Amino acid sequence: MKKILIQFDSDRQAAVFDAVTAYDAGIDALLQYGDVRPEEVRDLVYGAMFTRGPGDLKNTAVFIGGIDVAKGEALLKEAVGALFDPLRVSVMLDANGCNTTAAAAVVKVIRSTPVAGQKVVVLAGTGPVGQRTAGLLAAEGAEVVLTSRTVERAEAASAAVKERFGVDVSAAAVADLAATRQVLEGARAVVCTGVEGVQLIPEDLWRSHETLQVLADVNAVPPLGVEGTKATWNGKEIDGKLVFGALGIGDLKMKVHKRSVARLFEQNDLVLDAEGIMATAKELAG
Amino acid sequence: MKKILIQFDSDRQAAVFDAVTAYDAGIDALLQYGDVRPEEVRDLVYGAMFTRGPGDLKNTAVFIGGIDVAKGEALLKEAVGALFDPLRVSVMLDANGCNTTAAAAVVKVIRSTPVAGQKVVVLAGTGPVGQRTAGLLAAEGAEVVLTSRTVERAEAASAAVKERFGVDVSAAAVADLAATRQVLEGARAVVCTGVEGVQLIPEDLWRSHETLQVLADVNAVPPLGVEGTKATWNGKEIDGKLVFGALGIGDLKMKVHKRSVARLFEQNDLVLDAEGIMATAKELAG
Amino acid sequence: MKKILIQFDSDRQAAVFDAVTAYDAGIDALLQYGDVRPEEVRDLVYGAMFTRGPGDLKNTAVFIGGIDVAKGEALLKEAVGALFDPLRVSVMLDANGCNTTAAAAVVKVIRSTPVAGQKVVVLAGTGPVGQRTAGLLAAEGAEVVLTSRTVERAEAASAAVKERFGVDVSAAAVADLAATRQVLEGARAVVCTGVEGVQLIPEDLWRSHETLQVLADVNAVPPLGVEGTKATWNGKEIDGKLVFGALGIGDLKMKVHKRSVARLFEQNDLVLDAEGIMATAKELAG
Repeated sequence: MKKILIQFDSDRQAAVFDAVTAYDAGIDALLQYGDVRPEEVRDLVYGAMFTRGPGDLKNTAVFIGGIDVAKGEALLKEAVGALFDPLRVSVMLDANGCNTTAAAAVVKVIRSTPVAGQKVVVLAGTGPVGQRTAGLLAAEGAEVVLTSRTVERAEAASAAVKERFGVDVSAAAVADLAATRQVLEGARAVVCTGVEGVQLIPEDLWRSHETLQVLADVNAVPPLGVEGTKATWNGKEIDGKLVFGALGIGDLKMKVHKRSVARLFEQNDLVLDAEGIMATAKELAG
Repeated sequence: MKKILIQFDSDRQAAVFDAVTAYDAGIDALLQYGDVRPEEVRDLVYGAMFTRGPGDLKNTAVFIGGIDVAKGEALLKEAVGALFDPLRVSVMLDANGCNTTAAAAVVKVIRSTPVAGQKVVVLAGTGPVGQRTAGLLAAEGAEVVLTSRTVERAEAASAAVKERFGVDVSAAAVADLAATRQVLEGARAVVCTGVEGVQLIPEDLWRSHETLQVLADVNAVPPLGVEGTKATWNGKEIDGKLVFGALGIGDLKMKVHKRSVARLFEQNDLVLDAEGIMATAKELAG
Repeated sequence: MKKILIQFDSDRQAAVFDAVTAYDAGIDALLQYGDVRPEEVRDLVYGAMFTRGPGDLKNTAVFIGGIDVAKGEALLKEAVGALFDPLRVSVMLDANGCNTTAAAAVVKVIRSTPVAGQKVVVLAGTGPVGQRTAGLLAAEGAEVVLTSRTVERAEAASAAVKERFGVDVSAAAVADLAATRQVLEGARAVVCTGVEGVQLIPEDLWRSHETLQVLADVNAVPPLGVEGTKATWNGKEIDGKLVFGALGIGDLKMKVHKRSVARLFEQNDLVLDAEGIMATAKELAG
């Protein structure tokens, strides 16, 4: 019986990235669906549920991608809502790589330094990767501060993290160098999750920082979020700090993605969102 | 040489159901086409005909699905019209599962009781499954009565069955309990092919019926067409009658679907519509 | 690691022809994309480049098809423009079969008679196949004359060939029999690349021609471009001339298409347009 992955993508053309990665994760066949609307999901998922017996349904799974994470979440909600016992299929959400990226970045941080009870800053953290990074770090016991240029946006993101992950995350406005310096005061680690091509931390600030032990940056497009670093750095030690660039994190991210897809086919009732993908990342990082 | 199935679907997203079933029927690769319009079929079918030699063309086949059966029939007409000797590929129509469902239901009936010369009622039979059920039963020699709430709709469906299957089917208006009782008078079997969630036969009527020996119901969504039954019943005997629910029929339907797809790859000139799929169902039922 | 071909097609439904041919060329999995717009190509190609390591990228490739050759060329430009070292994938353009058809026709001609320094006429050569045929023949050293019904269109096509292939091709207006006779004067070979169903050379003209040694015609729909011939002729000798019909050329064309797709997976930096596909055709023709 072939392992069939059903790819739902909210973009007009379903991603090549997720398709190739799925094949490399060991699937036998892929059904690609682009421009998928929430109201179309139920019937498609029924088609997955009603074609194989309960004992065989672990050979069918659903992957949800697309650039727009909010749309992906809407598709996930519909897919999970369509499932019922015993006719379940496993489902994974990784729209825009948000979950695998956040999980890989967080694992890089927590495998480098203990974060429980420590201050960790998620700079420019209002987006999907930032929110997931904040939520996953808080779940590890870190005292997370999520920043944005305005306090309103930071607080809204913090509230969203609270609702989604059930954890408390502080919000802070960081719009200039002084605020950056202030928010990093006493921090053990920082993760930059801003948009591509925007520098967030000047080199002299982080190199001379007294408490920072780990810096991670998910931006691969120069200028990088952390000035004076390279995207390929994978825990490079500079002035006593370990630095992880986007490509350095990306290698683990790819492994997490593949392993997560493979896990979908080990049981028929897995729902892999941020937490489940974080568990995969921890397992892979040893 | 890979067995390639080309799936034409009139819906915006080609059905997962037909795709998974095709893989389980043994195909190697699937080309999925959604939102297929009749005017697009010829070139796509030419692409199937002109790529492999006549001796290899049994490894390429076309499956036509989609919720709208009339649209599926239009696609079938175009596909078959594009074929010419010796460059043929086999084609199957099962839009909305109409053929596999009707064939499985009819086989359940005729394997339970002889229908030749017997009155058999197709209740609420104006839809694609109902018309096919009526046509296939009449082809088995049954005296079929097809009902609808209005006599005009019943007669239109009866005429369509006559044109499509070349058989005579009586039409009757059944809009209330008295008419239901009347149309079932003297009937050997009844097949309910109405829309989901609409009860057609009250329990006291069928349990006390004097001539009915078989009841079949293709509606799986409560309330079922036959009151007091279960969708999972697969020939359960109640008061001397055999009852088949939608899921009881569905098991055979799935086998018929898979076997029919497999048959497409045994020769290059098969056209599987209701009659051919009925032949598969009979073969499978032994 | 599976050999994955990514099919970009500018038509609403990606071609079945290219898909089946790809599987027959030995690929393991196909990602089909229809209605692809130039602005969508970069992200899709990135998805191909960023999922496998440089050493594995020869297992991923891109095929560009669709009826509209100009659109295909625009997609090719975007695809090639997205690539950078060392993360390349091989790419092939064969929109509307233009490259494989032209290469097969030209190989039929040059394997039948030496063309270097000889006059060769490409009749009705303004379309994509005609321009490629003219360019490839000129690259073989032939003195090519490309014709159209108006001199303006012939000259525009000739200029396009010059720009694309870097070769000189003469332009001539051929709107009637006298002009046909005149342009063929002293020609060693002629290739008819006009639209389907239009006769270009009367039988008495070519059969009594003094210098013509080879005639090739890519039109398979009667009336053929060369009167009194058959589409299936594959070098049939008539009055001392070798005649190639569209189906006779088509057999080589199919082999060239399959072999070209297979070549995509032998290295990760191949770009197969007219010249590369011509090289494949020559290799196959021995």
